[in-house]
Amino acid sequence: TVVDTPGYGDAIDNTDSFRAIIQYIDEQFERFLRDESGLNRRNKVDNRIHCCFYFISPLGHGLKPLDIEFMKQLHNKVNIVPVIAKADVLVKKEVLRLKKKVMEEIEKHEIKIYPLPDCDSDEDEDYKDQLRQLKESVPFAVCGSNTTLEVRGRKVRGRLYPWGVVEVENPEHCDFIKLRTMLITHMQDLQEVTHEVHYENYRSERLAKGAPVPKRTTSLPDHEKGDDKDRILQEKEAELRKMKEALAKMQAQMQHKN
Amino acid sequence: TVVDTPGYGDAIDNTDSFRAIIQYIDEQFERFLRDESGLNRRNKVDNRIHCCFYFISPLGHGLKPLDIEFMKQLHNKVNIVPVIAKADVLVKKEVLRLKKKVMEEIEKHEIKIYPLPDCDSDEDEDYKDQLRQLKESVPFAVCGSNTTLEVRGRKVRGRLYPWGVVEVENPEHCDFIKLRTMLITHMQDLQEVTHEVHYENYRSERLAKGAPVPKRTTSLPDHEKGDDKDRILQEKEAELRKMKEALAKMQAQMQHKN
Repeated sequence: TVVDTPGYGDAIDNTDSFRAIIQYIDEQFERFLRDESGLNRRNKVDNRIHCCFYFISPLGHGLKPLDIEFMKQLHNKVNIVPVIAKADVLVKKEVLRLKKKVMEEIEKHEIKIYPLPDCDSDEDEDYKDQLRQLKESVPFAVCGSNTTLEVRGRKVRGRLYPWGVVEVENPEHCDFIKLRTMLITHMQDLQEVTHEVHYENYRSERLAKGAPVPKRTTSLPDHEKGDDKDRILQEKEAELRKMKEALAKMQAQMQHKN
Repeated sequence: TVVDTPGYGDAIDNTDSFRAIIQYIDEQFERFLRDESGLNRRNKVDNRIHCCFYFISPLGHGLKPLDIEFMKQLHNKVNIVPVIAKADVLVKKEVLRLKKKVMEEIEKHEIKIYPLPDCDSDEDEDYKDQLRQLKESVPFAVCGSNTTLEVRGRKVRGRLYPWGVVEVENPEHCDFIKLRTMLITHMQDLQEVTHEVHYENYRSERLAKGAPVPKRTTSLPDHEKGDDKDRILQEKEAELRKMKEALAKMQAQMQHKN
């Protein structure tokens, strides 16, 4: 599922603009907590937000005060993956400069973005290399398109400018492929971090101050109890399929929201 | 002279963001009023703001609430020329759609932008055609660059992307040339409107409520008293030269503010 927040930050006074987003995230946590604490916990639906792409304007020179405030308010609730939007307005040097600036500011303001996992030393070299590349690319600089064009005989998803065609899935043009790889490869980790870090944060705060919620007997989600490997495999496949659909939808939305 | 306002609209709460701009414009009017009312009025310097390029984000889908509010607060003080910034992020269809949307919103919210003058029926056809083209192009969609590149043997001011070169001075790529033509051709009209409409507004309000200011005996500015044609010509040439310098500077600043 993709949840979009069009119009975020467009107001004159954006002081309250993240409230709706925080509320939405908390509602999903709350629902999960209720389901998990109820009788029929086998069939609970997981609508928690596992990943938040935070789109940074390519036109600024780093993070704006609103970006910093948003990330600080949300980094303990959700996995934030910073993304530079519509990066086809930046020449290569500008992309690199903006990425560097954004990372410096994230560090300076002690913002916790989603940490890509470290790789075990026994992983194969290709995987290590991929992970290194992904880590170096953050914040991913992407552009999107919902039209396919023909470029030198190939069908590509792209944007046709008078001076050339931007190919969304060309790694020379933008980081779209990297972002997709990250999302698919680390989907499970994103879910685990959500469950073990963000949800646990929510749960303990909630239990400390809120109304009593029936006791929880285990900390592992149902689908990881591993007595039925086939089922788990099927679930993962369904998840991947859903992710791909969501990505295609996201791709279409990114550029043409109206 | 070019006055830039970097960082405008970047704050979380932008409620007060035009105050500094309004104050600056009023200060220039005030100084002119003082000079004009003083003894040595021959040597007064005109630092009034004759034209305000209002840069609209190419990433939105029209005017933002801040844009509308800014223009409403300032349209009785200064000639507003709306411009779509960094328009090289938009494909042709998107440029046309955004221009249409912006003009519809300007009309709907009764915002008074600088009105390009109507042309007399006895003007030559080329001029009429140019004026028609300029009017159709508002808001001008521009992009800037401070680097020159070589494209098929020609030196051009442009931006080098992996998928092609955006040429700032190519009318197929953006409206920069049109914006420059507008500014140079209608510089005198911009000054006249400033003097006869915006400054008169300021002056009458100021006189109605403010401390008394010595009476003004004529409403024509000195340089239009026309007893010294050579001097006027020289002045106009100097003005044009200054405009061209300002334009080059603006061009450089537009894309690379840091």
